[in-house]
Amino acid sequence: MGIEDGWSRVAIEDLQPRIDGGRFPIKRIVGDMVVVDAAIVSDGHELVSSVLLYRREADAAWTEVPMKPLGDDRFRASFRVEELGRYRYTVVGWVDRFRSWARDMVKRIDAKQDVEVELLIGMALLEDAATRARGDDAAALVAAAEILRAGGTAGAREALSDELAALMTRHGARPFATTWAPELVVVVDREIARFGAWYELFPRSAAAEPGRHGTFRDVEARLPYVEAMGFDVLYLPPIHPIGRVNRKGPNNDPVAAPGDPGSPWAIGAAEGGHKAVHPELGTLEDLRHLREAAAARGIELALDIAFQCAPDHPYATEHPEWFRLRPDGTIQYAENPPKRYQDIYPFDFETDHWKALWEELLSVVRFWVDQGVRIFRVDNPHTKPFEFWEWLIGEIKRDHPDTIILAEAFTRPMVTYRLAKLGFTQSYNYFPWRNTKPEIAAYLTELTRSEVREFFGPNLWINTPDILPEYLQFSGRPGFVTRAVLAATLGPSYGLYGPAYEQCVAEPLAPGREEYLDSEKYEIRHWDWDPEASGSIAGVIGRLNRIRHENPAFRANHDLRFHPTDNGQIIAYSKRAADGSGLVLVVVNLDPHHVQAGYVELPLEDLKIDPDRPYQVHDLLTDARYLWHGARNYVELHPDGYQANIFAIRRWARTEADFDYYL
Amino acid sequence: MGIEDGWSRVAIEDLQPRIDGGRFPIKRIVGDMVVVDAAIVSDGHELVSSVLLYRREADAAWTEVPMKPLGDDRFRASFRVEELGRYRYTVVGWVDRFRSWARDMVKRIDAKQDVEVELLIGMALLEDAATRARGDDAAALVAAAEILRAGGTAGAREALSDELAALMTRHGARPFATTWAPELVVVVDREIARFGAWYELFPRSAAAEPGRHGTFRDVEARLPYVEAMGFDVLYLPPIHPIGRVNRKGPNNDPVAAPGDPGSPWAIGAAEGGHKAVHPELGTLEDLRHLREAAAARGIELALDIAFQCAPDHPYATEHPEWFRLRPDGTIQYAENPPKRYQDIYPFDFETDHWKALWEELLSVVRFWVDQGVRIFRVDNPHTKPFEFWEWLIGEIKRDHPDTIILAEAFTRPMVTYRLAKLGFTQSYNYFPWRNTKPEIAAYLTELTRSEVREFFGPNLWINTPDILPEYLQFSGRPGFVTRAVLAATLGPSYGLYGPAYEQCVAEPLAPGREEYLDSEKYEIRHWDWDPEASGSIAGVIGRLNRIRHENPAFRANHDLRFHPTDNGQIIAYSKRAADGSGLVLVVVNLDPHHVQAGYVELPLEDLKIDPDRPYQVHDLLTDARYLWHGARNYVELHPDGYQANIFAIRRWARTEADFDYYL
Repeated sequence: MGIEDGWSRVAIEDLQPRIDGGRFPIKRIVGDMVVVDAAIVSDGHELVSSVLLYRREADAAWTEVPMKPLGDDRFRASFRVEELGRYRYTVVGWVDRFRSWARDMVKRIDAKQDVEVELLIGMALLEDAATRARGDDAAALVAAAEILRAGGTAGAREALSDELAALMTRHGARPFATTWAPELVVVVDREIARFGAWYELFPRSAAAEPGRHGTFRDVEARLPYVEAMGFDVLYLPPIHPIGRVNRKGPNNDPVAAPGDPGSPWAIGAAEGGHKAVHPELGTLEDLRHLREAAAARGIELALDIAFQCAPDHPYATEHPEWFRLRPDGTIQYAENPPKRYQDIYPFDFETDHWKALWEELLSVVRFWVDQGVRIFRVDNPHTKPFEFWEWLIGEIKRDHPDTIILAEAFTRPMVTYRLAKLGFTQSYNYFPWRNTKPEIAAYLTELTRSEVREFFGPNLWINTPDILPEYLQFSGRPGFVTRAVLAATLGPSYGLYGPAYEQCVAEPLAPGREEYLDSEKYEIRHWDWDPEASGSIAGVIGRLNRIRHENPAFRANHDLRFHPTDNGQIIAYSKRAADGSGLVLVVVNLDPHHVQAGYVELPLEDLKIDPDRPYQVHDLLTDARYLWHGARNYVELHPDGYQANIFAIRRWARTEADFDYYL
Repeated sequence: MGIEDGWSRVAIEDLQPRIDGGRFPIKRIVGDMVVVDAAIVSDGHELVSSVLLYRREADAAWTEVPMKPLGDDRFRASFRVEELGRYRYTVVGWVDRFRSWARDMVKRIDAKQDVEVELLIGMALLEDAATRARGDDAAALVAAAEILRAGGTAGAREALSDELAALMTRHGARPFATTWAPELVVVVDREIARFGAWYELFPRSAAAEPGRHGTFRDVEARLPYVEAMGFDVLYLPPIHPIGRVNRKGPNNDPVAAPGDPGSPWAIGAAEGGHKAVHPELGTLEDLRHLREAAAARGIELALDIAFQCAPDHPYATEHPEWFRLRPDGTIQYAENPPKRYQDIYPFDFETDHWKALWEELLSVVRFWVDQGVRIFRVDNPHTKPFEFWEWLIGEIKRDHPDTIILAEAFTRPMVTYRLAKLGFTQSYNYFPWRNTKPEIAAYLTELTRSEVREFFGPNLWINTPDILPEYLQFSGRPGFVTRAVLAATLGPSYGLYGPAYEQCVAEPLAPGREEYLDSEKYEIRHWDWDPEASGSIAGVIGRLNRIRHENPAFRANHDLRFHPTDNGQIIAYSKRAADGSGLVLVVVNLDPHHVQAGYVELPLEDLKIDPDRPYQVHDLLTDARYLWHGARNYVELHPDGYQANIFAIRRWARTEADFDYYL
């Protein structure tokens, strides 16, 4: 620094939460607290005071919250985010002359020193603050100065109240104060950004009768089925016209037969592109009707954003400058050499015309937002530039802060996390490949107990049309139950692709592949929409989602913790609601083939359970109740049952004198 | 970001080393390496290339070093700092079209695809790069393009050499590149900033005969004594005129008797202030002579900077505006209520005239720099503003980058570290209060294995005129040996205040106090300057400092590591020279009262010692040699000996066929 810059006496370090030095926002849900910590010091022996400042980004005025010392020069304060959108926060620290004066005054008086001059110093500080205050505050400050003037040492003791200290924190001078820069940002979303069960289905497979192309009207008829399973979000793969040029046949055959429907992700044909509806699905009006019918059942519709084109997308002829031209004059198709995807033209984000391209893609999202859609799943975001997403999401959320955007970021960890930092509300993640006890515990601990939790919203998808995890290929129905229990209880948000999932479809494209045989991506399937159909676990899923809604612990993940068991196939974890209430304990058998039994060990003291008294564990899946006692208790989990216990833990609350029951 | 800002395709995260997001420089010694790591990613599947850029701050041109991938999207490169002063570094990453093209070309050729169009793309990339290159590079690029044109597939294979890839990293286009901002800084110091043994003495106690005030000439006469002990730096407490107003008497008596010399830290009197020499010590010319005489013996002189005034300092009358006035018109003396230090006026750094004050204080340091002094110890830096020090040290080191400034920062950890970040070369620290095995291991691990090592230069002072650590009060001579061995081998820099230390002076001012009785701060002492004097450990210290100079391991601390022993009183640690050579193992008995014995356990594999063969440990203190074998070996340490082994470990290097000895 140069001497011309002026200076401040206070240093602020390690302000938390703060992502990459403040480059990226943290995320919260309406009603959440933001707890802010910082290390704040000054030179010398005077006391430092500090306040947390916060405001809605749109507002000019800050609200101040005094910070409390935690010891070791750390301070803390918090604020609640009450509204959707963006908030800002920062911290101010200063050398507090009045509090230092008051602290020293007590010592001087105790040492029976002459404090005449010190009383004059205190009066001057109070009178100076009074000039900055108004009304009652100003009067109180003047009165305090008067007490010092009139009362001498006795007056000083009288004046040294906590109330006066608080007034002086508000109105006292803050010379050479330091304000943390740059200001930090919180993005505040709706609760469904954190807590929701997602269901994916292909509308074209939604017809009641075989052989007919399903429509939005058919999807409407499936809503009771989805509602019975308790899902909160219904996500549809792309609903746009599907390209005919180089269309893929069943099982990704490079040659389609006449009548093959093609992949919905090969977007665009003569009928239109990203703002059009595939005519066989119905009309835009039908889509709006579906959205409203779903909403009436408490189900929110989510659409897919896949920024890529079929060769016959109108963009390819209207805007060839948005694609990369090969030296032979053709448009560059998608490749992962030596593989060629000649049914897909990726956009060339490096085009000289990138601004027009970006604006057009933004207009695509705006178009669907204008139809009332507020949840989007973005296909392969990691193959488009980071800064494009930061810009697009920022634009959309500025006007519609209720928008939620899920990243299909199946890529390397740093890229996945980067996309979340850039603005994606939620993200796909590695849950499909975390199947053993140590894998699950390590991964969920990373997601919930590290800095990652400040910006990354994991949505635990169990399967997708692209991913039939190896575990499910060999597990039979018990494994589908296990993974559903894990997803539904390990994550406030989870998702599955059905009816393939609840009907336990497990046949891969080929041994060693994690793709579905006869995938709906390339063909229309006909499903039995009876939730009671033989082999369907729709009932289990419905029960899980009901438990999630009835127990607030499943809405949060801030204190998810894993507990030891003496059986490597049994995983146990507990969690609580955001307010600390509603402790639940989940115990899952990861072995789909055998009965597994063992002891679960709970940290009773941390969980505030009396080690000397029994406590009740109430299995929310079966409604069975057990009395447990002490830290180690026995569990036995059968593949032909739920594979799991989801226990609400109820502590003994009264003595036998009450003849009363558990809380 | 706004769409108008332009954009880049690469994200760089977690660039290391970097202190507080780049707010502060890291520190190095001339000849050191700076190893730079970063996580660098792009969207999509193309390859990312990156280079480290570095330059002396004074130079405009960057030097580029290609970064090597470490896996998981991390990259590394390094550079050597060859000159004193400040360097800058940063990292650039970009999507490397040529390397991506080359990678894909191999796959295409292996898959026997038609690559005609791809060859054209490669040629265009090469020809484009050739326009940016000159001379041989340009010719090589044109030639490579020609090979592609002429050779087809075979030509492509021929062109895909590492040399061509390196050429293309240098000259290829770097579209949408990302450069890390802000640039990061390295401050490069002389070796003595890291490696040096410091000796503090009071010149006024340096007279050969009792009863006479010592002078700089007397200190010159003590140089052979200091040299025999092997010290590198001779540090003198303040040498300025001492105030007479409110002068303190012996043992901090608030009333001085006539003839009491006062504390050298009560600076300023009629004879002058911070730029004057106390007449009883001699003249400025005498001081310069002492500095040169010391230098001739390889000892560098260090002076004290104590920015505070006695009441009769000329500043108090010439610049009352630099002090705080109390409401009664008097100048505010130093206080730590209820304690009053009426012999000291602190500067009021918040004065409206702070710029003039800061400039004057800078001129004080410049004055002594102009006398040839380049090492300063700053008294109580934590009671002056942080930003003042950052500015002052920056100004001094800009003109004199060979200046070394030691902070007497006995304060809370965050303040101590903050001062180091702001520019202090070295710092006092908590070593005097780290006496047990776990205390020592935890503290030195924090200093040498955490981020702290990038900016904090610990100088392990064993005692000071203010601090007679409790351990030494009860340890007798063996404890003085123990602490000297620890300081000299745990830290490349250490210091002690003598002759009190080597003569094992241990009487405190009062029980439970860590101050010296009859401290030299307030009175002149007479010392026996015979290194062979009864009870003196000057010989031990001389041996330690010789070992430090002869074994490069003691010049560095980058890989200091502690090893298990089965005796809580025996601590063991090893270290190596910066180039990895010269392994030493130090084993110390922390118990000054009893013989202690036990087993030391070494990680043979990490230390590259063959577990199946004996190795030699050579005690540099006693010259004894032992053959050890395997991981666990026995030691026995006697309080009447050195209390320690300082082993050079020599591995068996040849077979018996050589009839040769140890390396």
